[in-house]
Amino acid sequence: MIIDFNGKKIYAETHGDGEALVMLNGIMMSTPSWTQFIPALSSRNKLILLDMLDQGQSSRMSEGYDITLQADVLKKVLDELGIKKATICGISYGASVAMNFAIKYPDYADKLILFNCVPYTSQWMRDIGKGWKLARHSPQAYYHTTIPVIYSADFYNHNPEWIAARKEFLMQHVFNNKDFLDAMDRLTDSAVAHDVRDELAGITAKTLLVGSKEDYLTPPQQQKYIRERVPGANLVVIENCGHAAMYEQPDIFTALITGFVNE
Amino acid sequence: MIIDFNGKKIYAETHGDGEALVMLNGIMMSTPSWTQFIPALSSRNKLILLDMLDQGQSSRMSEGYDITLQADVLKKVLDELGIKKATICGISYGASVAMNFAIKYPDYADKLILFNCVPYTSQWMRDIGKGWKLARHSPQAYYHTTIPVIYSADFYNHNPEWIAARKEFLMQHVFNNKDFLDAMDRLTDSAVAHDVRDELAGITAKTLLVGSKEDYLTPPQQQKYIRERVPGANLVVIENCGHAAMYEQPDIFTALITGFVNE
Amino acid sequence: MIIDFNGKKIYAETHGDGEALVMLNGIMMSTPSWTQFIPALSSRNKLILLDMLDQGQSSRMSEGYDITLQADVLKKVLDELGIKKATICGISYGASVAMNFAIKYPDYADKLILFNCVPYTSQWMRDIGKGWKLARHSPQAYYHTTIPVIYSADFYNHNPEWIAARKEFLMQHVFNNKDFLDAMDRLTDSAVAHDVRDELAGITAKTLLVGSKEDYLTPPQQQKYIRERVPGANLVVIENCGHAAMYEQPDIFTALITGFVNE
Amino acid sequence: MIIDFNGKKIYAETHGDGEALVMLNGIMMSTPSWTQFIPALSSRNKLILLDMLDQGQSSRMSEGYDITLQADVLKKVLDELGIKKATICGISYGASVAMNFAIKYPDYADKLILFNCVPYTSQWMRDIGKGWKLARHSPQAYYHTTIPVIYSADFYNHNPEWIAARKEFLMQHVFNNKDFLDAMDRLTDSAVAHDVRDELAGITAKTLLVGSKEDYLTPPQQQKYIRERVPGANLVVIENCGHAAMYEQPDIFTALITGFVNE
Repeated sequence: MIIDFNGKKIYAETHGDGEALVMLNGIMMSTPSWTQFIPALSSRNKLILLDMLDQGQSSRMSEGYDITLQADVLKKVLDELGIKKATICGISYGASVAMNFAIKYPDYADKLILFNCVPYTSQWMRDIGKGWKLARHSPQAYYHTTIPVIYSADFYNHNPEWIAARKEFLMQHVFNNKDFLDAMDRLTDSAVAHDVRDELAGITAKTLLVGSKEDYLTPPQQQKYIRERVPGANLVVIENCGHAAMYEQPDIFTALITGFVNE
Repeated sequence: MIIDFNGKKIYAETHGDGEALVMLNGIMMSTPSWTQFIPALSSRNKLILLDMLDQGQSSRMSEGYDITLQADVLKKVLDELGIKKATICGISYGASVAMNFAIKYPDYADKLILFNCVPYTSQWMRDIGKGWKLARHSPQAYYHTTIPVIYSADFYNHNPEWIAARKEFLMQHVFNNKDFLDAMDRLTDSAVAHDVRDELAGITAKTLLVGSKEDYLTPPQQQKYIRERVPGANLVVIENCGHAAMYEQPDIFTALITGFVNE
Repeated sequence: MIIDFNGKKIYAETHGDGEALVMLNGIMMSTPSWTQFIPALSSRNKLILLDMLDQGQSSRMSEGYDITLQADVLKKVLDELGIKKATICGISYGASVAMNFAIKYPDYADKLILFNCVPYTSQWMRDIGKGWKLARHSPQAYYHTTIPVIYSADFYNHNPEWIAARKEFLMQHVFNNKDFLDAMDRLTDSAVAHDVRDELAGITAKTLLVGSKEDYLTPPQQQKYIRERVPGANLVVIENCGHAAMYEQPDIFTALITGFVNE
Repeated sequence: MIIDFNGKKIYAETHGDGEALVMLNGIMMSTPSWTQFIPALSSRNKLILLDMLDQGQSSRMSEGYDITLQADVLKKVLDELGIKKATICGISYGASVAMNFAIKYPDYADKLILFNCVPYTSQWMRDIGKGWKLARHSPQAYYHTTIPVIYSADFYNHNPEWIAARKEFLMQHVFNNKDFLDAMDRLTDSAVAHDVRDELAGITAKTLLVGSKEDYLTPPQQQKYIRERVPGANLVVIENCGHAAMYEQPDIFTALITGFVNE
């Protein structure tokens, strides 16, 4: 379905029935990224997938914006669907949106499941992000700058065919796409102002944090910071796993979500 | 229900319907220990609880035995219930039984969920176990020797009322009970020969390992050893949690089980 | 040498010359515990060893006292030796004394080296300590209650002869000694009030914290707490090592001290 | 001094007297990188600094070579200096050279101190290395691709002036220097074949491994692999520190080296 958000188109889809579960994409993702997970995530729940602004089938933006605008997008999608309360699960950029949403619209956020997230975009992350922007001159450079570091060394080394197929796909269909790269730049910029450190103590949603031991982009240290501040939050760390937990350990990823959302 | 096992009585009960999920007690536990978890664990599954030999309402043993006998007990219970395949979830001692069961009866073990477990009972553990046996002269000594170390310092320090109630209960009803202490001694002895190190590579059940960062009795190092050897096994570590994960973080405990068993 | 401290005798000895380095014993230790380390620790420094009250050759106490009294003992020893500034290195109980000393006598404490230490004696630690006191009815019980847990499982399992010799020594000469056990009880009690949490930020000595990954008595979590609060403090964690770092990894132990004291 | 190595010039310098201590540069480093450390490292030892092939004042290479050639370079330098035995301390790339040296010339390597090292150059590392090579089109891109990731997020965020000065220096004097970038490419390529996994068990030098908890380029997992295989090796992990341990925590860096080399 297409939802109007202040003149912009937002693409969303739902699967199954039950208590609402929203999956918020990581920065490079879009709704098709969830295809393999739809059966498991929708078997007991109304699963809501959406492309945020500058993602997938939703509108491209013409100027800069702040990540909290994506929280408003989610609010609009839930309102359109008539959903008053949902579990919000976000991955990386999506987890930042999820936290901002839970702070701005606490009544809507029943539970939070935050994978590989950070409380704010530090100078360190911003400077890494600039490196991404400076690598868009060639798909090859973009791949080598952005992709290896989001996997654990073990996974990357031991799944050469999977990685090769992924590289082929990204090089041929994504990293040579000016529209995608422009959107990536704006999404990256939208995260620069992300900073919920002072608001973590006010989060009322029941919160599960999931980190990965070998996550070099959003290391567990960041999630520990959040766990210590969000009332009642729990943290589990997946051993031997990198930033892309959903690809490296899909079974654990699914088990944590379906177990937590339905308890 | 009561099941006959070579002339011994085994107490078991089932709750709910669906794919079978067996919960195997830790060494000090018995079926009532699961009371608070029954609704969640049986909502989509046939939950099977049992007291193993020398636990709860099952028969006391008159002489020594090996932990693999408990695997035979479980086999008998499943046969009586007509269950051909189940997810076996074990806690500590129960996790040792679960591994032994999966090795001896691989067709029965569909999935394994192993909380706070070890691949073998090392000299270090045996010598700690001897300390437990030597502390039975007074409930007070038994408490101080066995209980604080199974909690994370954080949980123990920040939940004084919960701990005090637990201490009161254990001191008045459990640690002054000669029958319980005799059984504990035999259970402890039955674990001495536990050693599945050479058989881990042959485990075919899909395996989820769960450790606790602050588990001083069965530290995560032990579960990493198992993860590296059981094909396809995954490991998550609960941050800020001790050996008694089910009491310290019941939500994570439940979420991991229900998520993994039903995926 | 014997130094008078308010009518009590304090035994101390010095070795070598150079900037002063004080080694403060762990709770069960005494000056002879350092014999193997004397050559390395005194090769460039004036090494000061002492038995604190209720340790080794120093006076036994007849009534209870607070751990800060041991800081006064150290002050007296340094005054007698004419030492105005020293590096204070403490192990476990000794590290607690070292922190208290650095807070009470900041001018004397040039640097701090704190092995396996805690910022306060929590209820969890106190209750473990009570277990120790309740195990003194037999050397066997005392050994099994206090010793295995202070080693990493790996070290304990892989050095059976070393452990056996240590057990023999402790059982025959130490744990059957009423004088030693009475002193241990008082030392344990003296640590109950240890709590420097609110004063960590005021420590001016240059501080090196050393933890052990497999320290089940004073886990690294405790040293992280201290590192975050003592200005400029650094923390290194010895992998695959338990609470008794000096016995398990003597080379690292020595290297860290001699490197830090002389830089 | 300049030493001839098969027609190539090798720059080396020595400081102080005592048992020999060689410091092997990381990939981007050269002898002046050690300036601040010379007093501490040469106070009791003959400190040997050198620029390996394609580093600093040593010859540039015209074609590809293997990292083991750098081990031959070191052998030549020691021979010229008449040194038969030394402690070899290497950082990252230098640690790879150090391991290769200890394997090829075991009689020369008395002790090894290996900071932030890996047992082999995996596909993951190679693909990150390719990203570096693809970023040389602009100093800005090179900086953002190679530098932030080698610091811990904490250090990078909390030392903005230090980082800004470093960036300025690198941008103006280094990353716009074709000669430097060509050499970096060759050095990177020379490490591709680095693989000592099968030879670790044969290392006879007494070995200290040092990792950093927040090292995203050569995470502690890699050093654990080495520790488990080099006989008697020890590993310490510096908390809250990234890949560039020498810059982030110079005191610990120096203490570990001087303590270990002189024990």
